[in-house]
Amino acid sequence: MTRPRRLPWTAVLGVAALALLTGAGSEAVSHVLLALLLVLVSANLGGDLAMRLRQPPVLGELLAGVVVGNLGLVGFEAFEWIAHDEMVNVLAEVGVVLLLFEVGLESTLGQMARVGGSAFVVATLGVVAPMALGVGVGAWLLPDESFYVHLFLGAILCATSVGITARVLQDLGASQTPEARVILGAAVIDDVLGLVVLAAVAGVIEAANAGQSAGAGPIVVIVAKTLGFLVAAGLVGVFVVPRVLRRAARLRGTGVMLGLTLAFCFAMSFAALQVGLAPIVGAFAAGLVLEHAHYQPFHDNGERQIEELIHPIVQFLAPVFFVLMGFKVDLRAFADTSVLALAAALTVAGIVGKQVCSLGVLDKTIRRLPVGVGMIPRGEVGLIFADVGAKLVFQGHPVVDSGTFSAVVIVVIVTTLVTPPALTLVMRKGAQAAA
Amino acid sequence: MTRPRRLPWTAVLGVAALALLTGAGSEAVSHVLLALLLVLVSANLGGDLAMRLRQPPVLGELLAGVVVGNLGLVGFEAFEWIAHDEMVNVLAEVGVVLLLFEVGLESTLGQMARVGGSAFVVATLGVVAPMALGVGVGAWLLPDESFYVHLFLGAILCATSVGITARVLQDLGASQTPEARVILGAAVIDDVLGLVVLAAVAGVIEAANAGQSAGAGPIVVIVAKTLGFLVAAGLVGVFVVPRVLRRAARLRGTGVMLGLTLAFCFAMSFAALQVGLAPIVGAFAAGLVLEHAHYQPFHDNGERQIEELIHPIVQFLAPVFFVLMGFKVDLRAFADTSVLALAAALTVAGIVGKQVCSLGVLDKTIRRLPVGVGMIPRGEVGLIFADVGAKLVFQGHPVVDSGTFSAVVIVVIVTTLVTPPALTLVMRKGAQAAA
Repeated sequence: MTRPRRLPWTAVLGVAALALLTGAGSEAVSHVLLALLLVLVSANLGGDLAMRLRQPPVLGELLAGVVVGNLGLVGFEAFEWIAHDEMVNVLAEVGVVLLLFEVGLESTLGQMARVGGSAFVVATLGVVAPMALGVGVGAWLLPDESFYVHLFLGAILCATSVGITARVLQDLGASQTPEARVILGAAVIDDVLGLVVLAAVAGVIEAANAGQSAGAGPIVVIVAKTLGFLVAAGLVGVFVVPRVLRRAARLRGTGVMLGLTLAFCFAMSFAALQVGLAPIVGAFAAGLVLEHAHYQPFHDNGERQIEELIHPIVQFLAPVFFVLMGFKVDLRAFADTSVLALAAALTVAGIVGKQVCSLGVLDKTIRRLPVGVGMIPRGEVGLIFADVGAKLVFQGHPVVDSGTFSAVVIVVIVTTLVTPPALTLVMRKGAQAAA
Repeated sequence: MTRPRRLPWTAVLGVAALALLTGAGSEAVSHVLLALLLVLVSANLGGDLAMRLRQPPVLGELLAGVVVGNLGLVGFEAFEWIAHDEMVNVLAEVGVVLLLFEVGLESTLGQMARVGGSAFVVATLGVVAPMALGVGVGAWLLPDESFYVHLFLGAILCATSVGITARVLQDLGASQTPEARVILGAAVIDDVLGLVVLAAVAGVIEAANAGQSAGAGPIVVIVAKTLGFLVAAGLVGVFVVPRVLRRAARLRGTGVMLGLTLAFCFAMSFAALQVGLAPIVGAFAAGLVLEHAHYQPFHDNGERQIEELIHPIVQFLAPVFFVLMGFKVDLRAFADTSVLALAAALTVAGIVGKQVCSLGVLDKTIRRLPVGVGMIPRGEVGLIFADVGAKLVFQGHPVVDSGTFSAVVIVVIVTTLVTPPALTLVMRKGAQAAA
């Protein structure tokens, strides 16, 4: 009687396209509604495709973003603005902040401390090895450029972008494995170290520009701010959070538990941003210091588990981040062969460098391969570093010129797209071997 | 042993203030994180206070917003930017869109059709009566102004802002009562009629400006677009949605049900905006056409109820709208006595006019007083209309001058703040009488 096969997905896209054509829609609200609509539809279609290919949904979300973001190549440019829309970018950032908060919630401070040694060594190797390899690639393929340019290439390869890996681990239901904890811990430390390296390299170049040798001042300030933040986060978690939540459980009103938990996440993300760290570092730290026991007074009042309330919000906003990352991939970057050679060498250096870091896993029961693979993605952190280099001038030229920048974009694309299937493969292999 | 009383709420606010002072934070992300933090903390504290006074939490959220938004009056201007931040305004709009969607989800198209007659008569009277009273107030207090100015004052008093009422009804657990359905249905029709009136009045003034008599052209276009939208929404709900959801249940991936439901909500809001209606009208219509039966294929797969997934998202984002509305209240508007006289007369005209409309309730089992009270708030719709008037020039002067605008602001403040306690009172009285 019914014809369920008659109305394909194009019906939904058709509504969007029709709406797009019928009005100018220059209003900010209209833009955000359209962007959210597109993101949700393409994320779900991409996720479905990925699942059918036994891949984590996040890969589908990325690829769906790549497809929609590059429709301009076939002459359809109606969606080009989305990648640069500030509002959509902020929503994406809030989405990845909430994702890392949720991942942090799944671990406890104690569990992280137990893998802390491994995470620290992994992170340190994960900065030193890619840095050395990046300098080598620069010296080999860009021999005419100064040592400072090579140094900067190395710095770009340092930082790990943990958003992708965190999502893949969550998709695989593996965010609570020891490997996941080492990766997440190392990635947070990595972000901190990467920041120090970037500040150091930029400081050295600016000093050389002025004909001076570099001073240690700015580096000391950054290290002090960062350590201060992490220590403060730990102290807040141990001493302040349990008491505030105990008091908050006496507050009346709907959604106090969810509201104040989110407020804490945003406070920590904001504080991280203020000391120069990525907001996701603050969000992860916030999730880490919140323990289930803190919520007991709320559960006594009949409230649901906090994860049950956070998860739908993450399901709504996290795909915005991943689809948008796909949107930002410009496939035209793959067309320039001289750029491609540099990109290929940097990609290999980046991947090999992060495999070296897995030697830093001290605990013999933790598998090294997933740790190395999980550290591969450079993501938006690499782009941010490259952007700093593009604005930094040495002897009249930008330290990162447009060709190098395109190469970095390709490194980010490849490491981002390669991680979900590779990590899925090595995590599953390990699970089979263990079984 | 523990000292739970030692750490007061100021601890949380302290973190925010400290973070605010330590960094410039000009970045968009930083702004949004800080705004969300402030909104969540003040919403929860305000909500707690309101509950202790046996008022709906939304009143507390509004008042908390008024307090924080007017800290500038005591010299603390650090939060002034929030009311005008585009990003925060968009998040607030998304929040109220999701709230109206959730309210729509709680009703079915069939239930709405049963109160359709009453809702239509209520809405019509709710436009005619305040319009007539507004013109009268204009003629009485602004005798030197032209008839067009009086006409515009009437138009400003027409439109109902349903966000506040919807939230109060939800807070009271009364969104599924027949009274609630009449109010919500009438408010949606009201929004449509208000738009037609605004277009008509603006058209008449523009024609008079050009020395012509007004043409019916633009009004016909608006009515046609609006009717087209509502009919299309109904058709989509009856024919397209069940089939799409049946197919979607076969999609793999995490969160398909939530993702596509939200996509539908945003698509309808976006479409409403494109035909010139408020996005909340589209969202409400989207919620209305989705029925529980449509989700059966998902529940067969073990998914939770859609409301359980939507509600945390609404709890997160809806307070942004209400706190922000409080933020926008400028208490200085209450200081000008000539403005106050006009404001008082317009407020009385607005409230009395909407009580007249409750005579339109045809079903004798539906109480009239809650309907009249529920239609009181003018909210942001009144401000939008006033803003149109401020930009419209007649005989060299703006139709709505700055004094009139301030008076409209006061009308909006008073009707917004008066509704939650008044509606709570009349709904509870009715419940007691019935018991």
